[in-house]
Amino acid sequence: MTEYPTTELNKVKRGPKRANYEVDTVYSILDDAFLCHIGYVFKGKAIVIPTAYCRKEDKIYIHGSLKNRMMLSLLEAGDASLTVTHLDGLVLARSAFHHSANYRSVTVFGEVRRVDDPIQKMEALACILNHMVPGHWDHVRQPNEKEFNATLVLEISIDTASAKIRAEGVNDELQDYKLPIWAGVVPIKQVAFDAISDKEMLDGVEVPSTVLKYIENNK
Amino acid sequence: MTEYPTTELNKVKRGPKRANYEVDTVYSILDDAFLCHIGYVFKGKAIVIPTAYCRKEDKIYIHGSLKNRMMLSLLEAGDASLTVTHLDGLVLARSAFHHSANYRSVTVFGEVRRVDDPIQKMEALACILNHMVPGHWDHVRQPNEKEFNATLVLEISIDTASAKIRAEGVNDELQDYKLPIWAGVVPIKQVAFDAISDKEMLDGVEVPSTVLKYIENNK
Repeated sequence: MTEYPTTELNKVKRGPKRANYEVDTVYSILDDAFLCHIGYVFKGKAIVIPTAYCRKEDKIYIHGSLKNRMMLSLLEAGDASLTVTHLDGLVLARSAFHHSANYRSVTVFGEVRRVDDPIQKMEALACILNHMVPGHWDHVRQPNEKEFNATLVLEISIDTASAKIRAEGVNDELQDYKLPIWAGVVPIKQVAFDAISDKEMLDGVEVPSTVLKYIENNK
Repeated sequence: MTEYPTTELNKVKRGPKRANYEVDTVYSILDDAFLCHIGYVFKGKAIVIPTAYCRKEDKIYIHGSLKNRMMLSLLEAGDASLTVTHLDGLVLARSAFHHSANYRSVTVFGEVRRVDDPIQKMEALACILNHMVPGHWDHVRQPNEKEFNATLVLEISIDTASAKIRAEGVNDELQDYKLPIWAGVVPIKQVAFDAISDKEMLDGVEVPSTVLKYIENNK
């Protein structure tokens, strides 16, 4: 079981028993989402932006317009931090103090570089789309030269990372279990609903298997 | 209709037609969630952490342990940026380039101060819990002195903010509408499932109305 070494940067300080540094755990949490929150420093301030991403081996790819301030700031900074969070439930305790949430989150730290190689860049674009809906890249019109050149792709190496997971019931103070106060967990899940086809669709074009499968897997 | 003035910090550069600076819009997106991603600068690097929050008038409140690195770094920095994102759908276009997502997001910038006044601090703790499940604070055991003193509450003033919203169908290139390629929107929603009561519950304690209402409103 390979683990990321803990450093000052990735070591989970609060709630260390919920920390997890296993590469497989980090990858599985990253692969279960396609939206991350990425942080960058702009004039000394931290700015947080949601953006799509994908993971391929030990790299993260993001894309954006050539003029995107976040992308340019990340490139200038040379390193990035990004976080992916799945909210899995509300943990409603007897005491206000022990209220919590069940979640899986990962924070990644790594170096940023611009992807210029055309083959690698196209592979990254396919990877980002397939991270949203697996296999869907093969069902769409792929980028033409103009679109391809207007897109900036950045690679972030997963140099170090940490995961934090809470997946359990209520933990109240011993004496509070005698109180006539309700406690429990409300499960939360991000779900997909049936696809709404574009009104301008040509007759006879069906929802592709990739989209149907995505919806089935996220019901 | 009151708006935040646009400055270099909050002005949306990419996709400005999706930008919204109305105070009411910003508040409504903030009030529809309880989990934000907050950014802070640690040794020159931006770090992003998910955390619970609430809004009360033009202030955001967050809480944590007295030794929480994020909280202490935010206090030291004196200002903060936080982002709240609702993912509302996948926008699957005919072309890879026009794939997008429907979402509502807000980024807030403001000053950070520690809340020391006991009445204001207790109100902030109630506000954070009620932001998760409206009205639930009155159904739980409230903090004792030890718990209260072990909790750090920070206030972030909403000095400026911007919202970004995409809530529409597919926008493909004109010539692509003739292609026999499927396009459409897959709606996405974060939903709550039936509460799982704690096994150690005293006999006869029922799920409170606040929790039932939360689940009903988030089905």
